[in-house]
Amino acid sequence: MAKNNDISASVIKRLPRYYSYLEELRNENVERISSKKLAERMKTTASQIRQDLNCFGGFGQQGYGYNIKALHDEIGSILGVDKEYKTIIIGAGNLGKAIASQISFEKKGCKLSAIFDIDQSIIGQTIAGIEILDISELESYCKKNSPSIAALCLPKENAFSVAKELIALGVKSFWNFSHFDLNLHFDNIIVENVHLGDSLLTLTYKTKNQM
Amino acid sequence: MAKNNDISASVIKRLPRYYSYLEELRNENVERISSKKLAERMKTTASQIRQDLNCFGGFGQQGYGYNIKALHDEIGSILGVDKEYKTIIIGAGNLGKAIASQISFEKKGCKLSAIFDIDQSIIGQTIAGIEILDISELESYCKKNSPSIAALCLPKENAFSVAKELIALGVKSFWNFSHFDLNLHFDNIIVENVHLGDSLLTLTYKTKNQM
Repeated sequence: MAKNNDISASVIKRLPRYYSYLEELRNENVERISSKKLAERMKTTASQIRQDLNCFGGFGQQGYGYNIKALHDEIGSILGVDKEYKTIIIGAGNLGKAIASQISFEKKGCKLSAIFDIDQSIIGQTIAGIEILDISELESYCKKNSPSIAALCLPKENAFSVAKELIALGVKSFWNFSHFDLNLHFDNIIVENVHLGDSLLTLTYKTKNQM
Repeated sequence: MAKNNDISASVIKRLPRYYSYLEELRNENVERISSKKLAERMKTTASQIRQDLNCFGGFGQQGYGYNIKALHDEIGSILGVDKEYKTIIIGAGNLGKAIASQISFEKKGCKLSAIFDIDQSIIGQTIAGIEILDISELESYCKKNSPSIAALCLPKENAFSVAKELIALGVKSFWNFSHFDLNLHFDNIIVENVHLGDSLLTLTYKTKNQM
């Protein structure tokens, strides 16, 4: 079994994808899969898969393929799916609502604990069973509950001040949907950016070039 | 000026990010930027930037840096931001609504033309100025309007049948938010997957390992 720091950054990037595919297979009650079959499913090469999964010795047996349950559990444990990081969402617009459903649905690694907004007309409503709180309660909430992760689903122009407050209150991890570049302004934080605009431009490019 | 097929896949993947950064700089009325400064902003290396942007000869002058306006325009044109691909959204839940705002807001390459849902209680409502249509109208709409791109914001279990219908109706490009693996079931289509679950798992991993 690999220590996490033995795993290269590029493998880490692919781990969630492996995890999802293995989960699908596990749900289909498949017990073992060869690197060739897994490669076909994931649209990659068998040698890439073998190379990546070599980090987790003991699950692949030549001629038998990978033990899906064991590999799924191992990768899940490396990813931290058994954690329950308290997660708050800033911004309860359509995106915030969609993200709330996502976090509640996945039940992996994160636990949605609060949602904040500035819009008085929606405060008190619930999303995914969680009440929308007034952003003015952010400080007292964080001091009491120490959330680990904040999903930023708010406009770019408000992101700096909110992030600054959250960091001062001890939040270190950000799931960043705002168009604000956190890494440019803050050090020693953990950021996972979701650039939906970039994704759409990539699709436009592929569409234009039929690739 | 590079022909598109001279540009490697890994550079293409980074083009939307370059485009966004250059746009920010342009909005700040910056005229030129060195590869070093751009690298700091983008948290990459100057040599990576020079290597990537070499594909678009003529914009970088040693000692003067890149001409932001020219490079932004050139990359935009390669990405197809001047196109207006008719785009439809399938699924008008919170995610569909958020994606509708995104497409309308970006105004780059895509033009939102219709939104479909099965939920009779929301049909006729408008999102981003576009009326939600009954999914039963999908066929007649596509025959009349020939949309190029479909954003799939619907549950996994409905994705196969809807995608099959769309492909039969001539839609080739998919912005796929469903958890359904289109590439596994259909050939000769263009897919840009957004795996929000993977993104969240990546953040969990980084949070667990404080990296």
